[in-house]
Amino acid sequence: MSELSIRPATERDIPLILRFIRELAEYEKLAQEVAATEALLRAALFGEHPAAEALIGSVDGEPAGYALFFPNFSTFLGRPGLHLEDLYVCPEHRGKGLGLALLRRVAAIAVERDCARLEWSVLDWNEPAIGFYRELGAVPLHDWMVFRLSGEAIRLLAERR
Amino acid sequence: MSELSIRPATERDIPLILRFIRELAEYEKLAQEVAATEALLRAALFGEHPAAEALIGSVDGEPAGYALFFPNFSTFLGRPGLHLEDLYVCPEHRGKGLGLALLRRVAAIAVERDCARLEWSVLDWNEPAIGFYRELGAVPLHDWMVFRLSGEAIRLLAERR
Repeated sequence: MSELSIRPATERDIPLILRFIRELAEYEKLAQEVAATEALLRAALFGEHPAAEALIGSVDGEPAGYALFFPNFSTFLGRPGLHLEDLYVCPEHRGKGLGLALLRRVAAIAVERDCARLEWSVLDWNEPAIGFYRELGAVPLHDWMVFRLSGEAIRLLAERR
Repeated sequence: MSELSIRPATERDIPLILRFIRELAEYEKLAQEVAATEALLRAALFGEHPAAEALIGSVDGEPAGYALFFPNFSTFLGRPGLHLEDLYVCPEHRGKGLGLALLRRVAAIAVERDCARLEWSVLDWNEPAIGFYRELGAVPLHDWMVFRLSGEAIRLLAERR
């Protein structure tokens, strides 16, 4: 059996994380969206006010995936939660339990921090992931739509008379 | 014409914000979910490490709505964003432009902080809100599903063998 291990990412992992982000975007058919650089990720993860935290998962000592998350907040509950932005396992290491191990660790961090909710998004065609999340007892929020304003559209709204 | 004003919330606004949260939950048919208290909101908004920020909108000097938001992060862009958790205007003050004024102020804050995205969720039956968001140029993310683990289910996952 493969030996799985999970550890917090360090600054040295930045090139690895960027590689994984690109692989995840490729898998999600969103490679054209990736504009992240090592400098941007270093500032976001290890700057003065970190915007997110990352975990590195390894199989037999070799880095094979990552999870990246940041806090959110529910006004209805009045309590913090965690938003899991990315969960990724390299194709050659899938089926060994690393995705579950990463998600379990994120859940443990959520428990430690007294979080009321752990949330994440998945593309609606990603059946293997959806099946996996359902098995864990996660509930899809079918009646909510997510809206997004990006870049220039944010500025246009800000300046609207 | 009514005079609209927007200001950052202060600790004195906590009872008002809790009232607005309850009214929003009522409108969204989710009143049974509200467990927030003044103490929880005070800690979240004005504690040592604030989890969220709020704006109070007034019509002719009278508080009439609020917006509440917190940071998020896009790994694909490598840049921060804002998540708008709540946007609410009292029924008697709707149609005066306060919702737009609040959203514009949130967009201006997003521009100031060099945010790449401004995102929020809306219930799929809330047609007036959906129409309003589309007019602003916001794009619904139709191909993403949101999954949630809550309370006990997080602990069960964390402890799973």
